Amino acid sequence: MKAIIDLCVVPIGVGVSVSTYIAACERVLREAGLKTQLHAYGTNIEGDWDVVFAAIKRCHEVVHEMGAPRISTTIKVGTRTDRDQTMEQKIQSVEEKMKAEPGA
Amino acid sequence: MKAIIDLCVVPIGVGVSVSTYIAACERVLREAGLKTQLHAYGTNIEGDWDVVFAAIKRCHEVVHEMGAPRISTTIKVGTRTDRDQTMEQKIQSVEEKMKAEPGA
Amino acid sequence: MKAIIDLCVVPIGVGVSVSTYIAACERVLREAGLKTQLHAYGTNIEGDWDVVFAAIKRCHEVVHEMGAPRISTTIKVGTRTDRDQTMEQKIQSVEEKMKAEPGA
Amino acid sequence: MKAIIDLCVVPIGVGVSVSTYIAACERVLREAGLKTQLHAYGTNIEGDWDVVFAAIKRCHEVVHEMGAPRISTTIKVGTRTDRDQTMEQKIQSVEEKMKAEPGA
Repeated sequence: MKAIIDLCVVPIGVGVSVSTYIAACERVLREAGLKTQLHAYGTNIEGDWDVVFAAIKRCHEVVHEMGAPRISTTIKVGTRTDRDQTMEQKIQSVEEKMKAEPGA
Repeated sequence: MKAIIDLCVVPIGVGVSVSTYIAACERVLREAGLKTQLHAYGTNIEGDWDVVFAAIKRCHEVVHEMGAPRISTTIKVGTRTDRDQTMEQKIQSVEEKMKAEPGA
Repeated sequence: MKAIIDLCVVPIGVGVSVSTYIAACERVLREAGLKTQLHAYGTNIEGDWDVVFAAIKRCHEVVHEMGAPRISTTIKVGTRTDRDQTMEQKIQSVEEKMKAEPGA
Repeated sequence: MKAIIDLCVVPIGVGVSVSTYIAACERVLREAGLKTQLHAYGTNIEGDWDVVFAAIKRCHEVVHEMGAPRISTTIKVGTRTDRDQTMEQKIQSVEEKMKAEPGA
């Protein structure tokens, strides 16, 4: 099952700066061969359900190993059976609608 | 790895009433032997990471089989290595703080 | 506009135990006269959109005043125009479907 | 209070294709003068708390006016008092850490 995911990992108990932990998660996702796109409040991921969720579990393991005693992660996951859709197509679909109705 | 999860499954393309699909997910979670607590905007789940996420995948499969062409799910997942904590203990911990500082 | 909300406030940079901050948010919500229900991964809130979001802003102010330098909050908000629905009715609707189709 | 937000609006009861509604929300956000960045599972927004949340409320009003009887929205909101940080700086901070530890 193909899925498009949005992942936001928040390490707790390691102070206010968390980018080192997020960078480690990015590496885990890329090593898993997943297509990812970092944004300002998380990371978009496209891939097979099992591969994505194995990588997310690995993120938790790695962030704990790095010293974070607690993690609170938010995941959005979309699946559809009506048609295949990539991350780029989702963005493109909205942008086309914006151009089509500029005065709306 | 033990996890506490909050799950909110939103079937898209099946009209405005979605409780039949949510009820089917609840059954999937219970059949997986997971401890769950339904609330007004999702379900709390406590259990082993792999068992929980296998059940969430099964929820997507079942909801698609029931006819929903698209699903958008939100998951919060918390893990901690400093100590074991149940769903009841999380609630209790907040309630005790509320009693302790009534005038704060 | 009436809304049903799920709120999860995560203070960052104050160590691993955050229940004191969550308890303070609960008090803010109750002082705002809002109907709330604490669960293991957040709080359900029912009320007028403006009242709820003013209270959520107040939660951020209070948690910062208590010393948290950073907060990451997750909010789910549902509105509907087809009919009025309470938090209890949302839960009841799912539970009725579960009883109706026990073998499904 | 300055905030960085991630917004994901899901109209329910209008079929499987929702990009027209998302495009309308994008226009609402831009008309409010907000800095936004669309991604594959939502939109990042940077701005003053009150301006952002007034715009999100307007999104719900507009999407209902367009015919959606029900909306389920997910919002992540981050605030910090230790320093000012833009959306670009958040991304840059993670990317620098990834370059710094390529073999990690």
